[in-house]
Amino acid sequence: MRFNDSTFFFYLCGMNKLTGWDNTIVALSTAPGVAAIAVVRLSGPGSFEIIDSFFPFKKLSAEPTHTIHVGLFIFDNEPVDEVVVSLFKSPKSYTGEDVIEISCHGSAYIIEQIIRACVSKGARLAKPGEFTQRAFLHGRLDLTQAESVADLIASNTRASQRTALQNIRGGFSHDLKEMRSQLVEFASLIELELDFAAEDVEFADRAKFYELIQKMTLTTNSLLDSFQWGNVIKNGVSVAIIGKPNAGKSTLLNTLLNEDRAIVSEIAGTTRDTIEETINIKGILFRLIDTAGIRAHSSDVIENIGIDKSLDKMRTAGIVLYIFDVNNESLAELEKQVETFNELSINYILVGNKADEHKEDPTKKYLSAPPVHFISAKNNEGIDVLKSVIFESTVHAPGNEDTIITNARHYEALQQVAASLADIKKGLDEKIPGDLLAMDIRRSLYYLGEITGEITNEDKLDYIFSKFCIGK
Amino acid sequence: MRFNDSTFFFYLCGMNKLTGWDNTIVALSTAPGVAAIAVVRLSGPGSFEIIDSFFPFKKLSAEPTHTIHVGLFIFDNEPVDEVVVSLFKSPKSYTGEDVIEISCHGSAYIIEQIIRACVSKGARLAKPGEFTQRAFLHGRLDLTQAESVADLIASNTRASQRTALQNIRGGFSHDLKEMRSQLVEFASLIELELDFAAEDVEFADRAKFYELIQKMTLTTNSLLDSFQWGNVIKNGVSVAIIGKPNAGKSTLLNTLLNEDRAIVSEIAGTTRDTIEETINIKGILFRLIDTAGIRAHSSDVIENIGIDKSLDKMRTAGIVLYIFDVNNESLAELEKQVETFNELSINYILVGNKADEHKEDPTKKYLSAPPVHFISAKNNEGIDVLKSVIFESTVHAPGNEDTIITNARHYEALQQVAASLADIKKGLDEKIPGDLLAMDIRRSLYYLGEITGEITNEDKLDYIFSKFCIGK
Repeated sequence: MRFNDSTFFFYLCGMNKLTGWDNTIVALSTAPGVAAIAVVRLSGPGSFEIIDSFFPFKKLSAEPTHTIHVGLFIFDNEPVDEVVVSLFKSPKSYTGEDVIEISCHGSAYIIEQIIRACVSKGARLAKPGEFTQRAFLHGRLDLTQAESVADLIASNTRASQRTALQNIRGGFSHDLKEMRSQLVEFASLIELELDFAAEDVEFADRAKFYELIQKMTLTTNSLLDSFQWGNVIKNGVSVAIIGKPNAGKSTLLNTLLNEDRAIVSEIAGTTRDTIEETINIKGILFRLIDTAGIRAHSSDVIENIGIDKSLDKMRTAGIVLYIFDVNNESLAELEKQVETFNELSINYILVGNKADEHKEDPTKKYLSAPPVHFISAKNNEGIDVLKSVIFESTVHAPGNEDTIITNARHYEALQQVAASLADIKKGLDEKIPGDLLAMDIRRSLYYLGEITGEITNEDKLDYIFSKFCIGK
Repeated sequence: MRFNDSTFFFYLCGMNKLTGWDNTIVALSTAPGVAAIAVVRLSGPGSFEIIDSFFPFKKLSAEPTHTIHVGLFIFDNEPVDEVVVSLFKSPKSYTGEDVIEISCHGSAYIIEQIIRACVSKGARLAKPGEFTQRAFLHGRLDLTQAESVADLIASNTRASQRTALQNIRGGFSHDLKEMRSQLVEFASLIELELDFAAEDVEFADRAKFYELIQKMTLTTNSLLDSFQWGNVIKNGVSVAIIGKPNAGKSTLLNTLLNEDRAIVSEIAGTTRDTIEETINIKGILFRLIDTAGIRAHSSDVIENIGIDKSLDKMRTAGIVLYIFDVNNESLAELEKQVETFNELSINYILVGNKADEHKEDPTKKYLSAPPVHFISAKNNEGIDVLKSVIFESTVHAPGNEDTIITNARHYEALQQVAASLADIKKGLDEKIPGDLLAMDIRRSLYYLGEITGEITNEDKLDYIFSKFCIGK
């Protein structure tokens, strides 16, 4: 048997035979809600026939691709709306199929009428992510690129946008494909040896092969390492602000939030609902956790925390900001809190508030404690430095920002790749027979192919794309 | 003095001198929220210069109008997103100016970056309705057409969509402009007579003029009459369902609502949030009013209603559905309720519920009462007929569906037109001097011109467009 994906694994070309992929699909692709414009998208072989039926005065199918046409959308002899139609002819479209974008007035009623009209002419409602899934099936995107489209849509910071866009544009999947094709080459040679087993030949240069495995191990490990940072980029870092009553928790919260809000509110309506309790520091999202539960319990929050249900919240928080009033907190008290943090393995930052009201230099008071960051939340003093401290206390970006994985599915598959590479290496060291080596190589190839979608199966694909929004 | 709008009134051409109209504006034109696609729109003389700065590899300003271009949006040497750019060159655009639509991934972060980038290159954020206001200022739409754009976006039923679209496409403003131009002609002749006052000539044929005024009065009154129906179309009709406990109010409510929901839920995400407590009967929206307040008071709801604060709610409701259990309501009780309705001038429908449980034909029981509509809310019997009854008990559509006014501003101006036409007619009957007649004609011309925007002033325009959404 040869290392030939199409015979070896459940392979892509089988997908096209499944029912549904040659349908024409339709969906609202913009956010629902009353707005100036909404875009309804059609994709599939019937797109032009469907759109032609709504424009009796202009044959859109006869128009060139990438052109725009303005006209009255007429259905059942009834004008529905004046619309702008954008034409994308196969294969020069997002999905690779014939795609039509109908830009209509953003009224729920009109959107519904246009979708209904398309359905009545033979389109069916698109499943979540089906446009992107089709782009994948037609080879317009590999699987990691397709998955990054969802990440890009969900991106809410510079870092998450940048990583998602890099991965859409190739990013690390290029490296993986390169590695995989080199591995396939060696694998073929080793398989060939098996055919000539009686003759004891070695077609595959073991030294070069060992070198490749070394290189692949390095790349894989560096990708695995990047996941922690990738996760920070994608999901942000949770920050719990805790402290005794009147330590200044809510003042700090407002100071942190307001500054950020001021920047964002310039552009109305775009980000307001996502900004509520998050701040963006150097492109990373920090989610400020409501610690009302923690606060309410006792005046000595931390002492009671062992029995507190909110303990989990604090522990799962990436960072705990412990804010205290430097005029009221003794060194002994602070050291006791720190001890509790350490016992609970909490990643904490000590914030000494109301430093401006303290009679003398507050740094002297806590010299023997871990570093305290002094601020005046009320007067907005020390806040910028505090933000840097918060940023620095998260996981750090790896050197190469081009190859960051943010997707748990990729992480898991890469762990399998790493394990099989280790097995191959061990096998080479121990000079195990070619047929055993071949098994480890196959495993490696399988998981590499699974990441980029060269190898996959229908259920897995459906699961991946079901997490997309409708219309993408 | 001649009837020349540009000297007579504060006139449009003055508007262009105001600061801001030659700026290039930018806004998100689709609804905010995470989605596959979002559209950011630029309009103004700087649109192409701005967009060119983000696409170093393709000079979009050199491309023909109505074409689509796919590329990487680069700002500050940083790729922001892969976008689709649609070009509309002046005057072939919505606003009449150079318009660019940037279709990006629907991430709040990306939308914000693209808007920021445009602002940094000299665009300013658009005011609500400013795109449409510019379309009006450049003569692409008259004022009633522009106002109908907002109505179309807000439309949620067939009737409201249809009326708004008809008005965008000319609708009644065509009639008004026609009338106004004929009136201007007569007015000029009458003004001319004033110049030759000493010679006692009549350039304007009084008989023909009288005929015109008659015709104009007819049209104006028919438009005024259409407003009640227009209001129903635009704002829907409120329906209060009241009745004693266990009469079946909530069953009826659910029966009415669920049927409609089942139809709408096919198309996910488009209308769900607007459908909560409304039903659509033959294209008209009926809003079901929460009468919890009315219900809570007493077992005999209607008797206590005189002292009930909810009285207003019931009175302002377009229709009150009084639902009762035919097995428990005596004829005397029902007649007493009807008496109360009549005293309060309430538009009511009597609904006899649980008719299927009644031993004999329930119609006999209430023969002397006003017509009762029998249903079984539980078994969904008689509901379709009830819906027709609800629909029929609203104001009826006038004969000509093309000329319906839905806008209170138009209604008020038309009332002024009607009043001045009556004065003109009276003046003609009484053969008053030409200079007095001219004053009434001017008033008539003024209000007609105000409706279509031939005459207007800046404050009024700003007020009208401020009610639009941003991005339109």
